[in-house]
Amino acid sequence: MRRAITLAARGLGSTSPNPVVGCVVLDTAGETVGEGWHQRAGGPHAEVHALRAAGERARGGTALVTLEPCNHTGRTGPCAQALVDAGVTRVVYAVGDPNPAATGGAQTLCAAGIAVEQGLLEAEAAEVNAAWLTSVRLGRPHVTWKYAATLDGRIAAADGTSRWITSAESRADVHRLRAECDAVVVGSGTQRADDPHLAVRGIEGAVQPLRVVVDTNGTAVTPDARVLDDAAPTLIAVAEDSTPAHEGETVRLPRATGGLDIRTLLDVLHARGVRSVLLEGGPTLAGAFVAADCVDRVVGYLAPVLLGAGPAALDGGGITTITDALRLDVSETVRIGPDLRITATLVAKEH
Amino acid sequence: MRRAITLAARGLGSTSPNPVVGCVVLDTAGETVGEGWHQRAGGPHAEVHALRAAGERARGGTALVTLEPCNHTGRTGPCAQALVDAGVTRVVYAVGDPNPAATGGAQTLCAAGIAVEQGLLEAEAAEVNAAWLTSVRLGRPHVTWKYAATLDGRIAAADGTSRWITSAESRADVHRLRAECDAVVVGSGTQRADDPHLAVRGIEGAVQPLRVVVDTNGTAVTPDARVLDDAAPTLIAVAEDSTPAHEGETVRLPRATGGLDIRTLLDVLHARGVRSVLLEGGPTLAGAFVAADCVDRVVGYLAPVLLGAGPAALDGGGITTITDALRLDVSETVRIGPDLRITATLVAKEH
Repeated sequence: MRRAITLAARGLGSTSPNPVVGCVVLDTAGETVGEGWHQRAGGPHAEVHALRAAGERARGGTALVTLEPCNHTGRTGPCAQALVDAGVTRVVYAVGDPNPAATGGAQTLCAAGIAVEQGLLEAEAAEVNAAWLTSVRLGRPHVTWKYAATLDGRIAAADGTSRWITSAESRADVHRLRAECDAVVVGSGTQRADDPHLAVRGIEGAVQPLRVVVDTNGTAVTPDARVLDDAAPTLIAVAEDSTPAHEGETVRLPRATGGLDIRTLLDVLHARGVRSVLLEGGPTLAGAFVAADCVDRVVGYLAPVLLGAGPAALDGGGITTITDALRLDVSETVRIGPDLRITATLVAKEH
Repeated sequence: MRRAITLAARGLGSTSPNPVVGCVVLDTAGETVGEGWHQRAGGPHAEVHALRAAGERARGGTALVTLEPCNHTGRTGPCAQALVDAGVTRVVYAVGDPNPAATGGAQTLCAAGIAVEQGLLEAEAAEVNAAWLTSVRLGRPHVTWKYAATLDGRIAAADGTSRWITSAESRADVHRLRAECDAVVVGSGTQRADDPHLAVRGIEGAVQPLRVVVDTNGTAVTPDARVLDDAAPTLIAVAEDSTPAHEGETVRLPRATGGLDIRTLLDVLHARGVRSVLLEGGPTLAGAFVAADCVDRVVGYLAPVLLGAGPAALDGGGITTITDALRLDVSETVRIGPDLRITATLVAKEH
C-alpha cells in the first residue's frame, strides 16, 4: 500500500477534478505484477493501468488501492467491475470514497464474492489526497497558504524590499507546490509589488495551474502584466462594479469587507474544476482567507533572518484575543537549503 | 571525545566564569578508567576529577579533554602539570584555550615529552562552550535571545493576551535554557505585562541565574514584584537619573536611544562573572540588543497558531532594508510538544 500511495502522489496537480489514486496488483504468490496511477482526468483510472500491466496474472490475486474503487461510469468505466472482470479475489483499499456519485464500489466487489478490506495506511493515503477529500467534504477547493518570512515573521523590510528573504532552494520548492495545485492565487498588493509570473518553472511534465489575481478594483493587473502571457491560463477576479484595465479573462464577484467575497471566489474556482488552491497572496489576502475560514494548510518558508521592522506575513483575519487564535498541527518540518519549511494543517472542523 | 563533550555539558550554567570541560582518561589498553567534568567555579577541573578516578591506571594512558588543559594556577593548580604528574603519555584536546591567562598547556605537555594532538571533534566541543568562547573573544557575555511566537510571528494577540501561545512543554524547556545561563534579562514592558518570576523551576540541582530587569525609568519593578523574592539573586538596571520604586539591588547605567546602553549593561554583567545571558525580554529590548550587535544566538519557540494581529517578536534594531538584514544559520530544529524550537546562530564576526 505504501508503494500505491507513492504512485498516487505522481498524479498530484494533474488529476483534478478527480482524486489521485495509486494501485498495485499482486499475483497469487504475492508478487507485484502490475502498478498504476491515475495520471490525468479523463484518462484511465489507477486500477485499469495496474490490471492492464498484470494481464492474466491478476486472476486469483490481490489489488491494493489507495481509494475505494469507483462504482460509476464517468469518462471511464467503473473500476469495481474491472476488478471483478480481471478475476482478483481480494481488494484492499485505504480510504473510503466520500463522493456520493462514485461510492458503492466496495458493495459491488463484495457482491461478486471478492474479499474486501478497508483502512490499511488510511491516514497516509488520506494525506496524499487531502485536497480532493477536502473539496468533496466542503464543496470548495482545498486551500494551502504559502508564505516566506523571517524568523521574526516579516515578509519584507521596512522600506518594502523583500528580494530575497528566502533562498533559491526555497523559491524552487515553491514551483513544486504550484505544480501540485490546480490554481495559484495572489492579491492586488502582490500583483503591484512583484508583477509575479506564477507559472511553474523547472519541473518537467508539470501541468500549469490556473493563475488567479484577486484585483478588486481592476487596477492592479495592467495590460503588460506578466500573468497575462500564454505560459498558463489566467483568471482575474474583480468587483462587480469595477472596470478592469486589461483584456484578460475576468470574473466579477461581490465585494466583501476589504476586498472580494472569498467563498464566492472559491465557488467559481470549484465550478471550473479547481480542487486545490495555492494562496501566494500577501498578508491582506491571507487575512481575508483566514477570516472566511478558508485556509486548510499552511506552508511557511522561514529564513534564518531577523529584520525587526516591516510587514507581517498575515494581516487581518478578525482574531483579536488569544483564545480565538487559529490552531494547527505541525505535520512536517524540512530544511530547504538554509531555510526551514514548516507545514501545518488545520484540525478538520465540521461545517 | 564525544563522551567528554557530553560530560562537559553537565556543567552548563554552573561553571561561570569558567568554561565547561569534560575529560576521559584511557589506560594503556584503551579502556576508560576515569571520567570527570568541571562542575563549578572554584572546584576541581575536569582533568583532576578524571585523573583521581583513574588513579595509577592513568600511567602510560591517554587523556581526552574538550579544552586545552590549563597552564595557570588559579583557585586550583594547573591541569597540564597534573597530567604530567599522573604519567599519561598522550593528550588529545578538542579546542585550544583562547584565554591568554590560561593558555600554554599544550607547550607544557610537549615539553614534558607527552604526545599532544588538537582538533578532534573541535566544532562539537566549541558548540558546547559557545558562551564561554564568545565571552573570551568579545569581552562580553554570550547572548541568547529567546522568544515564543505564532507561525505569523506574533507574541500576543491584538488585545495583549498571550497566555499561552506556546505549550506547557515549551515553557518547561525554557527553564532548561535558564538553568544553562548565568543571567536572565527582561525589559520593563515584560516586567509590567507579566510580572515574571524568572527563576528556574523543575530542574534538580540547577544553579539559579541572576535575574536582571532593564527598568530604565525605575517604575516597572514595584516593591511587590516577584523577581524581588529570594528564589534567585536579582539586579535592576535603571537610568542614572531615575529614582527606583523598589529596594532591590540596583545598577545605574547611561541612557541610550529608547532605553539603557546595552553594551554597558553587558560590561556590568561580565564584571560580575556572567558569561551567558538569556534575553527573555519583549520586542523592544530585543530590538535594542540587535541594534547594539549583541545577539549571538536565537532560540525561537514557534507555536502552530495564527493570529493575524498583535505585536511582533522583534521591534526595532535599526534594520530598514533587506540587504542589512541580520542573517543567521539554523543549527537545530526540534519538536517540543506541539511546538517547534528553532535555534539559529550568528555567523561569527570579527569585532
